[in-house]
Amino acid sequence: MDLLSIKDPSFLKKMNITELEELSSEIRKFLIENLSKTGGHIGPNLGVVELTLALHKCFNSPEDKFLWDVGHQSYVHKILTGRAGQFDSLRQYKGLCGFPKMSESIHDVWETGHSSTSLSAAMGMAISRDIKGESNFVIPVIGDGALTGGMALEALNHIGDSQKNITVILNDNEMSIAPNVGALHNVLSKLRTAGKYKWAKDELEYLLKKIPAVGGKLAATAEKVKDSLKYLLVSGVFFEEMGFTYFGPIDGHDFNDLFENFQYAKKTEGPVLLHVITKKGKGYSPAEDDRIGTWHGIGQYKIETGDVIKSVNSAPSWSSLVSETVRKLARKDKRIVAITPAMPVGSKLEKFAEEFPDRFFDVGIAEQHAATMAAGLATQKMKPFLAIYSTFLQRAYDQVLHDICRQNLNVFIGVDRAGLVGADGETHQGVFDVSFLRHLPNMVVMMPKDENEGQHMVNTALKYNDGPIAMRFPRGNGYGVPMDSQLKEIPIGTWEILRKGKDATILTFGTTIPMAMEAALMLEKQGVSVQVVNARFIKPLDEAMLYDIFKTGMPVLTIEEAILQGGFGSAILEYAHDQGFNHAMIDRVGIPDKFIEHGNVNELLNEIGMTADNIALKLHSMLPEKKKRA
Amino acid sequence: MDLLSIKDPSFLKKMNITELEELSSEIRKFLIENLSKTGGHIGPNLGVVELTLALHKCFNSPEDKFLWDVGHQSYVHKILTGRAGQFDSLRQYKGLCGFPKMSESIHDVWETGHSSTSLSAAMGMAISRDIKGESNFVIPVIGDGALTGGMALEALNHIGDSQKNITVILNDNEMSIAPNVGALHNVLSKLRTAGKYKWAKDELEYLLKKIPAVGGKLAATAEKVKDSLKYLLVSGVFFEEMGFTYFGPIDGHDFNDLFENFQYAKKTEGPVLLHVITKKGKGYSPAEDDRIGTWHGIGQYKIETGDVIKSVNSAPSWSSLVSETVRKLARKDKRIVAITPAMPVGSKLEKFAEEFPDRFFDVGIAEQHAATMAAGLATQKMKPFLAIYSTFLQRAYDQVLHDICRQNLNVFIGVDRAGLVGADGETHQGVFDVSFLRHLPNMVVMMPKDENEGQHMVNTALKYNDGPIAMRFPRGNGYGVPMDSQLKEIPIGTWEILRKGKDATILTFGTTIPMAMEAALMLEKQGVSVQVVNARFIKPLDEAMLYDIFKTGMPVLTIEEAILQGGFGSAILEYAHDQGFNHAMIDRVGIPDKFIEHGNVNELLNEIGMTADNIALKLHSMLPEKKKRA
Repeated sequence: MDLLSIKDPSFLKKMNITELEELSSEIRKFLIENLSKTGGHIGPNLGVVELTLALHKCFNSPEDKFLWDVGHQSYVHKILTGRAGQFDSLRQYKGLCGFPKMSESIHDVWETGHSSTSLSAAMGMAISRDIKGESNFVIPVIGDGALTGGMALEALNHIGDSQKNITVILNDNEMSIAPNVGALHNVLSKLRTAGKYKWAKDELEYLLKKIPAVGGKLAATAEKVKDSLKYLLVSGVFFEEMGFTYFGPIDGHDFNDLFENFQYAKKTEGPVLLHVITKKGKGYSPAEDDRIGTWHGIGQYKIETGDVIKSVNSAPSWSSLVSETVRKLARKDKRIVAITPAMPVGSKLEKFAEEFPDRFFDVGIAEQHAATMAAGLATQKMKPFLAIYSTFLQRAYDQVLHDICRQNLNVFIGVDRAGLVGADGETHQGVFDVSFLRHLPNMVVMMPKDENEGQHMVNTALKYNDGPIAMRFPRGNGYGVPMDSQLKEIPIGTWEILRKGKDATILTFGTTIPMAMEAALMLEKQGVSVQVVNARFIKPLDEAMLYDIFKTGMPVLTIEEAILQGGFGSAILEYAHDQGFNHAMIDRVGIPDKFIEHGNVNELLNEIGMTADNIALKLHSMLPEKKKRA
Repeated sequence: MDLLSIKDPSFLKKMNITELEELSSEIRKFLIENLSKTGGHIGPNLGVVELTLALHKCFNSPEDKFLWDVGHQSYVHKILTGRAGQFDSLRQYKGLCGFPKMSESIHDVWETGHSSTSLSAAMGMAISRDIKGESNFVIPVIGDGALTGGMALEALNHIGDSQKNITVILNDNEMSIAPNVGALHNVLSKLRTAGKYKWAKDELEYLLKKIPAVGGKLAATAEKVKDSLKYLLVSGVFFEEMGFTYFGPIDGHDFNDLFENFQYAKKTEGPVLLHVITKKGKGYSPAEDDRIGTWHGIGQYKIETGDVIKSVNSAPSWSSLVSETVRKLARKDKRIVAITPAMPVGSKLEKFAEEFPDRFFDVGIAEQHAATMAAGLATQKMKPFLAIYSTFLQRAYDQVLHDICRQNLNVFIGVDRAGLVGADGETHQGVFDVSFLRHLPNMVVMMPKDENEGQHMVNTALKYNDGPIAMRFPRGNGYGVPMDSQLKEIPIGTWEILRKGKDATILTFGTTIPMAMEAALMLEKQGVSVQVVNARFIKPLDEAMLYDIFKTGMPVLTIEEAILQGGFGSAILEYAHDQGFNHAMIDRVGIPDKFIEHGNVNELLNEIGMTADNIALKLHSMLPEKKKRA
């Protein structure tokens, strides 16, 4: 059928299984073709084609509410709800969002991006339904990786106790972004391989004999009892213990199995959990064979071969630069350990993991645990490197504050994907960390101007012994600058003058430095001499340099690819007024007080007005009249 | 024995059980007497007397590491580690901290305050131990309430998988602060009542018959199987599933039972969980009989009767004012529901819960889930009121950002205990919320000047339909001002001039208004006329009024009982410079860039220099020379 003609999912009601299977193939073909041009989360979506079709056939969206946890697996849902025609603009500026978006469709009832929110939201929707006396289904679709996020477990605990009617679809593909970890993963593995309640009678009899009739010394028998019990643990006991009725394992690519279990689930009172086994990348061999997460989210690729079309930039990625420098230093300093919350590939920690398997910890989607575990390590004089995306560090705000900063522990936080991230859009922009890290006592926050300074900053961070230190770095690749062979330490709180000037000063850091330099060059042509400072320490500020700058009385413009409220520019305002420079001409450029949607970073910066042209204009307007006329 | 003579816990090694029981009585007497004068967390500490003695006898602190989750149950530990002599200063300014504190003792290896951090920290310490090839024990002591915090579950998942040697003491007193909730609580209840592996053989045979030999329709048999399985679930299966060896239930007031199980635990490889049943308030009948949490943390009391010595202030508490106003409004608006993460008593929601049992949700210690569940409710046009302490809202930073603000949902966050909280100290000060809420797009943040304005603000918040809205309010009681009988709505973003003046302006909100008024009065006597503004909206600012103020050119001083970095004063600086008031004389008073320890709020404010005197001095120094001489 013509996917572009689909308006809503009601047509599925009349389809038989053969037709649904055909439709599945067409959808797979459509996704593989379209995503080869736009990029996107191909693996997760190929894995849920049948599941999504079955859900839309058996339930009635939008009365029944689908909550797509994380949300990047909602492409099939988007096709079925009338958005196939927009896939050529997927994840592009003003185009189709890569995540559920209420403004796109009435079928998107919950927006996601960060993982593990769907169960809590579902509980809210179920409560609302029951208060209103309505009877719709609430259906969170959550991956096995997202399930280990603390808030999902909090929700599981609440839902199980409440006995609300909630239909949890556990989409178990044995991988979230990287292979999953944790005890719960082991629980799921057992369930997957167990088959449905296929317990041999003799095994149970064996078990029976092993269990002591009364009391007994625990330690002596505990181990044997544990082994025996394993026979019983293949039944979803974990979820039953949590108050859910467990159905599974269910073959997520078999419509009969899906339909049958959905029908049972619909008739069951209280919360149910349907354990659906899917294969990530199903139906496209390069993605199916992926074992490390390359095909989770991807750029353009050649359909026939699965060859990824590389960008022209051959400089190392920032993640790789940082992780590789940590690895180099870890050879000499045994105290260094690396921690990632489920991002070993994204954070380029594979080589570290290979070289130091005992000093590498992928804790799964568990940012809070990751941060506080780092704090625990630091109490023992270890040197933990916590690799985490800016947007996910938001999850560990309290742990960074209460456990790391308050105890002033030596944790090095590598804040990856800081600044605008582009196609992932508003749920993933790394624009809040400057504001939320800067107001934490004891915290040092820095950002390098290029990858050479970056390697020195990593070295600085791992040599630093006076408390927590965070280094921000952007998504994507470096500039390909020459790299020093010897690592240096950058004195904490020191800035660098990149360009001298006497009429005005730009203070900026990281990705916005080139923009500042370009603006300075423009103004030079107009006879205005602009100083550009690499304000590489966002906290503490280089107060000596700032004092000298404000002493001159020249206008100061700050630029940051971060939210303006409480950000770096505000730090400069605070400094100026605290030091009595009450008459300083200061202006700030940065992300305004709103959420920034998806698109190419340059398009987004342009929309915000963060361009060299605008900066030159703004700076010019700040000059004294005399100078303007010059 | 003389508790004051204790230097370290080594003396316990030689004690026999009779002596330990005597010591337990002495410690209880000491706690009951001392806390009657200082106040403190009496219930939790009376409950862990034997447990703490047994731990210190069987393990060797500080080589073996005790991590007291939450930490308010560490008083007995403090007595045994040489701090009995400081109990007269407990929780007082410069006195003994109510929580573990590294600077007090080498036996305090992890500082706590917020719950659920101990397992993650223990994992960090265990990793460090194993890398260094050491062999000490790591012993987190965590309550049944704290166990449901998401980060504790994240850690459980990681520890169980890692199979590190960690000795988890689950201190199960069936209550954290309020009676516990959640599915995990049900799991624990079953374990408590089950006895040790006392499974009747005939029950297992019954079970055996009920289990289908192969396959079978799930729904048809699931319910029966579930019931049957219950017989097996009394064995700690939940924890065994998570990868732990489970010991329990253990009588936490029986030294023999404790010693025996500690010895087994010490010999067991991999993580163990000791399920210790204790009675909160044990040995002091007023505290033992407490069913709602009055004796969890308490002020002064009369030992004989257990009568709590009330403070003189008879005005309603802020929590009560807010919750009661919500209750009143909920009678007319069925969309209003109330949510608390384990603080029904602290947030004074008991009456709401009683009147609207179907619209009240205590989700347990689960701040993240609470916030996102509120968001889920708001998507369905409900009006959730999330009652949460400022310091605990830190745990839900990402959920407030990503789920509530980004989707611009109508959630009313009642930010309780905002500002300095006093005796609980640095882990609990509510001084970051202004900075971390203010930089979130779509968020409205307000704080009332008194309880009458407070009731109108609650009304305003629950009538507001344009997105999230937060109302801060302090710990303690109101002023006893007359209350309007009719609720009003306060226009969003409007301030109020409390006192007119032409020489200078003070902008402030909430608890610091009296200080500002007093300073203004002082200056009046010196012939300086000071305007005082109730800047009740921290976001959005009253830009019209600000414009008028800056137009006059008079100096502006901001005062806030919150961290200065990125706070309200910074918002004023941002406004001034954004609007081109580059030559405005602005200064800021507030909490400096450090953690503030425990003590009486006035003592703390005095230490910081936030006094009417200092404000008058500061404001005077900002006046033009001409005026100063006048």
